[in-house]
Amino acid sequence: MTATERFLAMSSRDLRLELEELYADYVACLDEERLEEWPEFFTDDALYRIIPRENFERGLPIATLHCESKGYLKDRVVAIRRTMVYAPRYIRRMVSNVRVLGWQEGQLGVRTNYAAFETLRDELTRVFSVGRCHDKLVVANGRLKFKERLVVFDSELIPISLIYPL
Amino acid sequence: MTATERFLAMSSRDLRLELEELYADYVACLDEERLEEWPEFFTDDALYRIIPRENFERGLPIATLHCESKGYLKDRVVAIRRTMVYAPRYIRRMVSNVRVLGWQEGQLGVRTNYAAFETLRDELTRVFSVGRCHDKLVVANGRLKFKERLVVFDSELIPISLIYPL
Amino acid sequence: MTATERFLAMSSRDLRLELEELYADYVACLDEERLEEWPEFFTDDALYRIIPRENFERGLPIATLHCESKGYLKDRVVAIRRTMVYAPRYIRRMVSNVRVLGWQEGQLGVRTNYAAFETLRDELTRVFSVGRCHDKLVVANGRLKFKERLVVFDSELIPISLIYPL
Repeated sequence: MTATERFLAMSSRDLRLELEELYADYVACLDEERLEEWPEFFTDDALYRIIPRENFERGLPIATLHCESKGYLKDRVVAIRRTMVYAPRYIRRMVSNVRVLGWQEGQLGVRTNYAAFETLRDELTRVFSVGRCHDKLVVANGRLKFKERLVVFDSELIPISLIYPL
Repeated sequence: MTATERFLAMSSRDLRLELEELYADYVACLDEERLEEWPEFFTDDALYRIIPRENFERGLPIATLHCESKGYLKDRVVAIRRTMVYAPRYIRRMVSNVRVLGWQEGQLGVRTNYAAFETLRDELTRVFSVGRCHDKLVVANGRLKFKERLVVFDSELIPISLIYPL
Repeated sequence: MTATERFLAMSSRDLRLELEELYADYVACLDEERLEEWPEFFTDDALYRIIPRENFERGLPIATLHCESKGYLKDRVVAIRRTMVYAPRYIRRMVSNVRVLGWQEGQLGVRTNYAAFETLRDELTRVFSVGRCHDKLVVANGRLKFKERLVVFDSELIPISLIYPL
């Protein structure tokens, strides 16, 4: 049985438990600022977008961030590492309400809610962004990887620290 | 084996996993403002209350919202839909710490923590309400439904947007 | 099969589900201010520390709170109960992203993210603290107990209500 067959044969519940582990690893990677490891959660041709909820619901194409491949994501990491004009801050991410929508044409649809908190030096922690992720995952090299990840955030205001991925 | 027997035979852990899926669906229904579907999570004779923690702990009966049946919940939805005086906003809900207390007289006791975040147009996201839910579920038409849901919120201040359900 | 053998034989996933129940109970104990029960989640020789993230990452030993045994934790509870100078407040805790690192020399390594919200009387709820816990658990009396719990919080500002445990 190949890895793909194994994932396809999983019950919706087992897939959710599998995904919860994946999201926990993904979030830890970002929270700990191991940014160079972040693109490895994606396929080579992955689409990654951060988009305001209003644009998303109206079908407007304009995204705050738009990356069309793993290469774009790597470029993004380089850009973040080179950008030192921002005040140092920590981002802490929480994922909840993981919902498995099922397989369609080899892609696993998933929805999650997230909340992200920002802490600047010498300031109290505040809510940075909340929203919902629309993910599509595929089996690549025996593991689930993001083929598509749309981060739809509730606030229309774009916090400057959106420089960090979600 | 009937649906009821199947649920009664489940281990506490399987019940929790079942409930986590239910809460994720429930929260998605509300977050996406599919309000007309919301009453369907409840039995016809369901009790739904939103109550400040201090009142709850002192045994005071006064609730911020009190609905004694699914009909009340439907009326509530109509009232929300007709109320356009409030500024448009998004509510984002997170559920965590699902604890299964077990079956008692055919009702499944459950506790959860929740956090809800509010985003008004052109404003940053802020914490809207946090608290704990005291739920009792029963098996109806082969599914778990809320027979009772008490939303106990920590803040004594009543945010105006409590107009939206939790 | 002893309790220890049972836990050691568990898959990583089963351990996570076991731990999620433990953390839910732990959080409920604190949220409901059943402080006298709190030390029972720890072994007699447990180490409990609350430490700012910057100190933790730089390897600086200075912690905001440092308790070297269950006895210290009990003293802490007595101190909290006797301290009435603080305004009454509720703390609401959310745990997410539970990651099982595995067994090492009889200790189970676990990482979690947490968010804690504070509600003072007549005030709106606000974010109180977010961060990550570095836990080591052992099997004692047939149950998992904390042998070590390091609460690493993102904000360098120490909120006065850190008097309450996390």
